[in-house]
Amino acid sequence: MELLDEIVEIVRECGEIILQADRNENVVTAKEGHANFVTVYDKKVQDILERRLKELLPESRFVGEESNRKDAVGEGDVFIVDPIDGTTNFIKDYHASAISVGMLRDGVPFLGVIYNPYLDEMYTALAGEGAFCNQKKICVSDKPLEKGIVLFGTSPYYEELSHRSFDKAYEYFGKSMDLRRSGSAALDLCAIAAGRAELFFELRLQPWDYAAGALIVKEAGGRVVTEDGEEPVYDRPCSIFATNAVAEP
Amino acid sequence: MELLDEIVEIVRECGEIILQADRNENVVTAKEGHANFVTVYDKKVQDILERRLKELLPESRFVGEESNRKDAVGEGDVFIVDPIDGTTNFIKDYHASAISVGMLRDGVPFLGVIYNPYLDEMYTALAGEGAFCNQKKICVSDKPLEKGIVLFGTSPYYEELSHRSFDKAYEYFGKSMDLRRSGSAALDLCAIAAGRAELFFELRLQPWDYAAGALIVKEAGGRVVTEDGEEPVYDRPCSIFATNAVAEP
Repeated sequence: MELLDEIVEIVRECGEIILQADRNENVVTAKEGHANFVTVYDKKVQDILERRLKELLPESRFVGEESNRKDAVGEGDVFIVDPIDGTTNFIKDYHASAISVGMLRDGVPFLGVIYNPYLDEMYTALAGEGAFCNQKKICVSDKPLEKGIVLFGTSPYYEELSHRSFDKAYEYFGKSMDLRRSGSAALDLCAIAAGRAELFFELRLQPWDYAAGALIVKEAGGRVVTEDGEEPVYDRPCSIFATNAVAEP
Repeated sequence: MELLDEIVEIVRECGEIILQADRNENVVTAKEGHANFVTVYDKKVQDILERRLKELLPESRFVGEESNRKDAVGEGDVFIVDPIDGTTNFIKDYHASAISVGMLRDGVPFLGVIYNPYLDEMYTALAGEGAFCNQKKICVSDKPLEKGIVLFGTSPYYEELSHRSFDKAYEYFGKSMDLRRSGSAALDLCAIAAGRAELFFELRLQPWDYAAGALIVKEAGGRVVTEDGEEPVYDRPCSIFATNAVAEP
């Protein structure tokens, strides 16, 4: 089986864990800041991903949201993983969370898999080979911003950014048809890739929030840059502006 | 078969139409204001609902988003229907739209059915008999606002309200864990009813946006009022603030 197919199977199994999660137990195990929760399921899914991906590619390294150890991303194959992107949604049973597995090869995005178990949508991309949702090729929309939907993140773990996030959201509201906020950056990036929205921005994200999604957007014909118009980095947080390449950020 | 069960069956069939909609045809037939679109599917679903509900209750009257004729709501049984709540989402294939069927009896909310075909979630309520999702009893959350999620609407068809909508959203952001915006008031009300979020507000909505959802929230133990703390009205637009009855609007 191809590497991508193997990863898809692993991620799909993890989706089942999310769907079957027993919400009656006390799932929240830690709070790491304003609204930044960790649940037993984040850890469980990450452990499975780390073990299975290591079996698949024994030489690979692993950076996960719930790790203490963050491997360097410079050389070789490095997985950058968010076991549950949209943890607050998961805790609330809000049905908008995803598993996100990105892989860099020698520092460059090479593979991205994002799975929304609630809608059973599996997004995949390999560098240079296009982006897919449930094996169907996807493509960004051709609409300009004024005929578009803007998705935004509030950077809820960084209170110093909230005022600017809302100012920017309001500014985009005036230039577009409307705004959405799902609470999952990974799913927002997939929405841009699938042509369901035209622009996504969040002023600070961690690499595991966008490692897979940024590649999926680019392979669907979109553009992903930081607020300064630079390429996203994968060894520290940055801002993310993803568009269909028509809408101006 | 009971009235509610019959309506559920009709609404489920309409959900199939939404899922099977051919997005390659030019679905938008009219624009009635800023981002206020009508599609062939809004009209198609409304026609089916109007015909089938009339067969079920020949004496009933009908108020639908896509009607020219808006029946008075004072006496007898009146259906208040949004064939596709979240039309912009539907056009964009954003997977967050619902069919909403409310019924007043002598001016008082008596029945509510909201169906999210993407997640296959059927929300139902009868006055005095509780609220259900896929036949499982649902209940609002017991969390205060500071441990809660706030859902907001931007009243996109009323540009004069947008600044105040965003100010309020930002204010609630500071008092809660985070915000969400789905683009479907009906689904936001269901999220409150199901305990997935603690407060929803939008500064102006039409009766078909909340006729079903307000009853579902109340029957799940929540509270639905206007900005002035009054009961919602069903013969003209009003503001809607729905909470789990713990969070203070």
